[in-house]
Amino acid sequence: MSESDVHLDHDRHERRGYAEAVYCEGKTLEQLSRIAREIAEHPDRVTLFTRCDPVRAGTIRTVLPQACYDEAGRLLAWPPDIPPHAGHRVVVVAAGTSDLPVAREALLTARYLGRETELVVDVGIAGVHRVLAHVDLLRSARAVVCVAGMDGALPGLIAGLIAAPVVAVPTSVGYGAAFEGLAPLLTMLNACAPGVAVVNIDNGYGAGHLAAQITAS
Amino acid sequence: MSESDVHLDHDRHERRGYAEAVYCEGKTLEQLSRIAREIAEHPDRVTLFTRCDPVRAGTIRTVLPQACYDEAGRLLAWPPDIPPHAGHRVVVVAAGTSDLPVAREALLTARYLGRETELVVDVGIAGVHRVLAHVDLLRSARAVVCVAGMDGALPGLIAGLIAAPVVAVPTSVGYGAAFEGLAPLLTMLNACAPGVAVVNIDNGYGAGHLAAQITAS
Amino acid sequence: MSESDVHLDHDRHERRGYAEAVYCEGKTLEQLSRIAREIAEHPDRVTLFTRCDPVRAGTIRTVLPQACYDEAGRLLAWPPDIPPHAGHRVVVVAAGTSDLPVAREALLTARYLGRETELVVDVGIAGVHRVLAHVDLLRSARAVVCVAGMDGALPGLIAGLIAAPVVAVPTSVGYGAAFEGLAPLLTMLNACAPGVAVVNIDNGYGAGHLAAQITAS
Amino acid sequence: MSESDVHLDHDRHERRGYAEAVYCEGKTLEQLSRIAREIAEHPDRVTLFTRCDPVRAGTIRTVLPQACYDEAGRLLAWPPDIPPHAGHRVVVVAAGTSDLPVAREALLTARYLGRETELVVDVGIAGVHRVLAHVDLLRSARAVVCVAGMDGALPGLIAGLIAAPVVAVPTSVGYGAAFEGLAPLLTMLNACAPGVAVVNIDNGYGAGHLAAQITAS
Amino acid sequence: MSESDVHLDHDRHERRGYAEAVYCEGKTLEQLSRIAREIAEHPDRVTLFTRCDPVRAGTIRTVLPQACYDEAGRLLAWPPDIPPHAGHRVVVVAAGTSDLPVAREALLTARYLGRETELVVDVGIAGVHRVLAHVDLLRSARAVVCVAGMDGALPGLIAGLIAAPVVAVPTSVGYGAAFEGLAPLLTMLNACAPGVAVVNIDNGYGAGHLAAQITAS
Amino acid sequence: MSESDVHLDHDRHERRGYAEAVYCEGKTLEQLSRIAREIAEHPDRVTLFTRCDPVRAGTIRTVLPQACYDEAGRLLAWPPDIPPHAGHRVVVVAAGTSDLPVAREALLTARYLGRETELVVDVGIAGVHRVLAHVDLLRSARAVVCVAGMDGALPGLIAGLIAAPVVAVPTSVGYGAAFEGLAPLLTMLNACAPGVAVVNIDNGYGAGHLAAQITAS
Amino acid sequence: MSESDVHLDHDRHERRGYAEAVYCEGKTLEQLSRIAREIAEHPDRVTLFTRCDPVRAGTIRTVLPQACYDEAGRLLAWPPDIPPHAGHRVVVVAAGTSDLPVAREALLTARYLGRETELVVDVGIAGVHRVLAHVDLLRSARAVVCVAGMDGALPGLIAGLIAAPVVAVPTSVGYGAAFEGLAPLLTMLNACAPGVAVVNIDNGYGAGHLAAQITAS
Amino acid sequence: MSESDVHLDHDRHERRGYAEAVYCEGKTLEQLSRIAREIAEHPDRVTLFTRCDPVRAGTIRTVLPQACYDEAGRLLAWPPDIPPHAGHRVVVVAAGTSDLPVAREALLTARYLGRETELVVDVGIAGVHRVLAHVDLLRSARAVVCVAGMDGALPGLIAGLIAAPVVAVPTSVGYGAAFEGLAPLLTMLNACAPGVAVVNIDNGYGAGHLAAQITAS
Repeated sequence: MSESDVHLDHDRHERRGYAEAVYCEGKTLEQLSRIAREIAEHPDRVTLFTRCDPVRAGTIRTVLPQACYDEAGRLLAWPPDIPPHAGHRVVVVAAGTSDLPVAREALLTARYLGRETELVVDVGIAGVHRVLAHVDLLRSARAVVCVAGMDGALPGLIAGLIAAPVVAVPTSVGYGAAFEGLAPLLTMLNACAPGVAVVNIDNGYGAGHLAAQITAS
Repeated sequence: MSESDVHLDHDRHERRGYAEAVYCEGKTLEQLSRIAREIAEHPDRVTLFTRCDPVRAGTIRTVLPQACYDEAGRLLAWPPDIPPHAGHRVVVVAAGTSDLPVAREALLTARYLGRETELVVDVGIAGVHRVLAHVDLLRSARAVVCVAGMDGALPGLIAGLIAAPVVAVPTSVGYGAAFEGLAPLLTMLNACAPGVAVVNIDNGYGAGHLAAQITAS
Repeated sequence: MSESDVHLDHDRHERRGYAEAVYCEGKTLEQLSRIAREIAEHPDRVTLFTRCDPVRAGTIRTVLPQACYDEAGRLLAWPPDIPPHAGHRVVVVAAGTSDLPVAREALLTARYLGRETELVVDVGIAGVHRVLAHVDLLRSARAVVCVAGMDGALPGLIAGLIAAPVVAVPTSVGYGAAFEGLAPLLTMLNACAPGVAVVNIDNGYGAGHLAAQITAS
Repeated sequence: MSESDVHLDHDRHERRGYAEAVYCEGKTLEQLSRIAREIAEHPDRVTLFTRCDPVRAGTIRTVLPQACYDEAGRLLAWPPDIPPHAGHRVVVVAAGTSDLPVAREALLTARYLGRETELVVDVGIAGVHRVLAHVDLLRSARAVVCVAGMDGALPGLIAGLIAAPVVAVPTSVGYGAAFEGLAPLLTMLNACAPGVAVVNIDNGYGAGHLAAQITAS
Repeated sequence: MSESDVHLDHDRHERRGYAEAVYCEGKTLEQLSRIAREIAEHPDRVTLFTRCDPVRAGTIRTVLPQACYDEAGRLLAWPPDIPPHAGHRVVVVAAGTSDLPVAREALLTARYLGRETELVVDVGIAGVHRVLAHVDLLRSARAVVCVAGMDGALPGLIAGLIAAPVVAVPTSVGYGAAFEGLAPLLTMLNACAPGVAVVNIDNGYGAGHLAAQITAS
Repeated sequence: MSESDVHLDHDRHERRGYAEAVYCEGKTLEQLSRIAREIAEHPDRVTLFTRCDPVRAGTIRTVLPQACYDEAGRLLAWPPDIPPHAGHRVVVVAAGTSDLPVAREALLTARYLGRETELVVDVGIAGVHRVLAHVDLLRSARAVVCVAGMDGALPGLIAGLIAAPVVAVPTSVGYGAAFEGLAPLLTMLNACAPGVAVVNIDNGYGAGHLAAQITAS
Repeated sequence: MSESDVHLDHDRHERRGYAEAVYCEGKTLEQLSRIAREIAEHPDRVTLFTRCDPVRAGTIRTVLPQACYDEAGRLLAWPPDIPPHAGHRVVVVAAGTSDLPVAREALLTARYLGRETELVVDVGIAGVHRVLAHVDLLRSARAVVCVAGMDGALPGLIAGLIAAPVVAVPTSVGYGAAFEGLAPLLTMLNACAPGVAVVNIDNGYGAGHLAAQITAS
Repeated sequence: MSESDVHLDHDRHERRGYAEAVYCEGKTLEQLSRIAREIAEHPDRVTLFTRCDPVRAGTIRTVLPQACYDEAGRLLAWPPDIPPHAGHRVVVVAAGTSDLPVAREALLTARYLGRETELVVDVGIAGVHRVLAHVDLLRSARAVVCVAGMDGALPGLIAGLIAAPVVAVPTSVGYGAAFEGLAPLLTMLNACAPGVAVVNIDNGYGAGHLAAQITAS
């Protein structure tokens, strides 16, 4: 494959005004290295490498040594500095401990797109009192990202409590009839309360990006 | 088809000790009439005709004029007298108005099997405070039947609040990605709180029967 | 069924600050009549009756004669006056003529929640130049609702062209492998461009509500 | 991730009166270690670690060395002492040898929640005489847990023979059109005999817990 | 459409030695009339019109007035005389009353292909003793056709009791998670006992034909 | 809805050089009437109204009385004259009589796009000799459209016999496990012989159009 | 787990008259060893160990050293001697080379149940002339087992050519829209020719057993 | 297994006039070696080994050392010389970098069947301007192969821009609701523009072959 196999869409960056993302799964180390070299020439643009495992992160950091890597969220950001706050607050909620990697991907994405962010963990629907205990924080956000696997019921519960939109991320956490995230996906699409915006299963990056767009000032 | 095409399982009645049920959908008026005549000879046995539309109910009542018919729950009971209370209390919860027919089928089934029953309507997860307002009633039951379509999140919420088992009935209420009840079915199977016993979509009879078995003394 | 079978959640209205909605499918005329009488006593609250066919609309208007009914969008609004503009502009795009009913439901919902709205019709992905001709209008919105059946590719195309979020509504328009809206639903969940917020199939009300929340000032 | 990433819900313990469960899959060794330390301070509370592989069990036992670990059932219990019998008897039936791990998970869960338990193995529907040979034992229980993969027909057969509820657990045992447990799940939901309470595929813990709730005195 | 739109495959008749079948659904009255006229010239060949509703049967009998029509089984046979017995006995079992139409289609097909046939009705798995009561009759057959909807467990039960093959026909009888016959289809494909030959949902004709082939002498 | 709700894409006509199509399902009579009036002003352009039932055809012919309507193929063409042959021959094969409506839609589409067409009917895989009898005709085509429901095996068989591409159209003909065309769709996608181009279920128009593109000179 | 965890069903052996089978997947080496020791005491009974990988086979042969093991078919037979022919001939057809393991499992099963067997390989529908070249051999059988993945069209083709039943085995060979064998399974269930008996995906044992039952004299 | 287990279909080669393909997945090294030896005797025939991993390629090249192997496209061609151009141009488009392996398989297949080919990479629908920039190249082809995962929207977009057919290949690239290629498959089958010919998921070989057939002169 020649050099021309991989393109970055700088036009789109300018067209839309948001950071560029590079989805790392399915890309070879050689392809990522080439992308990193191209990015190194544009220190003014935020680039997020998503679904980035430690090996791939190592390759990219050979070219961009200052890049910031979060292993839990599988996200590598360059330049590493978090931009100053712009727009409104985003609160990210993870229903369970196993949903944390996706929640962190959402959180970091929103943060690198300039939003103030807060994380709330382990507040499933089976313990509704824990959700209610966080209502004030949830109501302080202009967008809440809610990450949940298994029954995926938390976003609908939160949407009934606040006025801001809820970005719902189903996760592939669970087993059996969770069918790799299909169950929480359907639950979220059928949420009884309006105000639930659904993204793809495990798509923390997409959720953080959407929340940042909603909360742009 | 000869007379011998349709059999009632009186042995099973004795074997298990519960009322006999006749599922009316797919049965011809002639078949139901024959069954009714056979039942007329056994006034000591409770028989429930389920999924019984008004036309079929009319045919059966030609033979069993005293039978009690509930059109909303599509249930016809014979003999019409509700048996005295035995066992413990069953509370039936309908998440929405559209879930009422299935909820009534569950309620009447449990009642004709000898249980004290209570009905709570329209307490979806989108308004969690309405659920919490009923906690004392819910905790007074030895089994709660929870009927819900769309996201089907209510049974998991209730199971987290009480010690008794929750019999969860998904309904085909909803549209689009509810897929005729598949979405709430999967939600209930994946409920985060233990204690949720799932039955078939729209199966109010089965839910009421199971609740009566659980609450037998 | 007694009077207590149907409840309106006024608390939720106050809790969230948005209009109340009454989903009409599966409700009897008697139930709707009772709800209408209850609403008649609260002329200060916006109430939207969704999925409301002409017969049901007639029953409701017996109680609320001034209510505004849009047959195409199957939406009945009360009080009939459109509230003054608040928040930012919402543009609603229908990919094809057959997507119009859902698009109108979204448009009217956003309008009755106080948003300035615009409608664009018949700009499918098969004729990309027609989409590009509307880019300025699309970029003038703080949220775009995009309604599409069949391949459901339009929201992803638009999301790549604008900075604001796109609320994507798959419709059950189409045949064969469209599987009642499943195909466009999956397409939208897998959109390559970030910024696509997916709601349930044919859920125009939910899309309009979500867009109104996103564009609240 | 800070210490606050993982929470135990002691309130729920008190609210519901049952042991707490920690689902180990998807949790890191560090997270489990922290949970174990927190639990070590509450020797009066029964805690069950479910889906616990030997490596994770080793980590937990570093903190809780007396904990009882059952490798077949992937269950670790603390404190290790089985509580005295309370409530009624639970009989657990495994349709085949391959269903044993899930059956043991159910059995141990019910036992640690205070129930008297019995195990019956390898009594599939293909050899109905073996089922009939156990009828007396099955009728001695207030709840039967029935674990089956492949065709999943056993719970319906047993439900037709006894008066107590049958908790049905589909397993992912099988191949081809068993579709990872979907086939027995559907069979159980469509069981012809009433009295079948279905839980998620492979959910032995949930089944044991539900059976313990049903058989509470 | 010209005369040449519809062809009968007489070669196949000779090639295989069995009666020809005409599937009536989706065929116009004009097409059926033309086929009937063609058949009228071949009084030596058995022809079965399957899925034949009364209106279509009337049209065909205008041309073939002596044809035998069974409305329950939606089968029209010509010539009307049942051929003398050849081969071995076929027993057809219907799990429930609602499975009778498909069972009759199977029974009549086998009978018109020259087999001795017996019908057993209403012996579901929920009442296993009723199945056991028929074991002698079942064992007298060289092939048993077993028709069942809902959980579809009966064929596996019977296959465990006899030495001959069981032709299993799932039916679309049932509701909810029966998914129009998908549930019993999967159950039958996963039957624990070997010897179960599965055909398409509601395919009584195919089952009767297969049984006749198996029992050919 | 205002006049501007419906647009015809004349640009696309010029861009691609093929006839314009109007999909009639889901369009109101008023919308179709408006479209017909617009088309009346462009007698030089071929326009095909697809999925056009007799009532809709009547409305359109009020405006375009000379239009040619084929009820079996539900296709209305305007102007009615078949264009002179251009490009190469297309042979359309219908596996069964019930596949004829879709086959005619494909045939007429290709014909109105200027191709010489031939129709072959009722040559299913169950009678392979009938297929072989048509090999010379099949080999005379530059593209074969093959329409089949149920097992959908015919296109793969034909693709193994000829050098030209086979456009495969699954139909929703069949019952049970045909799942509204899903079975033949999957069969065609998995055809063992290369050269099979699959289109949507029942999409005769798309198949005829694709065949015309392939056979353009 | 105690000795009593594993049972062999000798009664069933006597009840049905066929060899006993032990499904090895999911069984531990210890369990298999125990079963082998039990079997060693019954040299008069044919026992087939199915889905038996080389490691498990080694363990079993420690106890039963003379047992015959076929690695390709993953089948271990004991006693090793092939029984004398009884009943009629079974021909096994594999559509492709990749279907051979399942075909061998079927072949060996039928052979150890006493049937004369023949194997035909690599005769897919894409090369119909290769199928026709084997017609005489196919017609010499009383049952044909046909093993095919991908489009699964071969059984329907063969069923149209012969008078005996075809036992169809879908395999998980293929990729993409073959969906692990779902595509050929549906094709076989929808075969246009009658006489196709479908078993579970990859179920070579079941197919060989069914064929042996059909061909019993 | 004897020598006769594997057959090459030289007849088919002659019957259809195209290269023979050997699908390597599921074949043993021994089987491939035997096939290679047979092919070595026919240096005049083009043979393509598809889905050929490096280990299998090594085995084949022991017999056919001059064979050309492309690891990215997992394709081995023999003889290695690319045939002279015949027919018309094929352009292959890969929507993303991860789609390249399948795109290369299509490209090389078309090239070894004698077509002039061009490759275009990374032109997803999210950046529509990049697609438009290639319109002239796309219009120069008589067939375009379009390879895309995730939303699979690119083929429909291109089909709306050009007059030639588009061969659409869904890939299993993506995650979550892409469901291993199901999402782009459905999108392509529902493409709004006619002219889209769909092949199986990841079937680069089939796409290249079909494109070569379409562009034959």
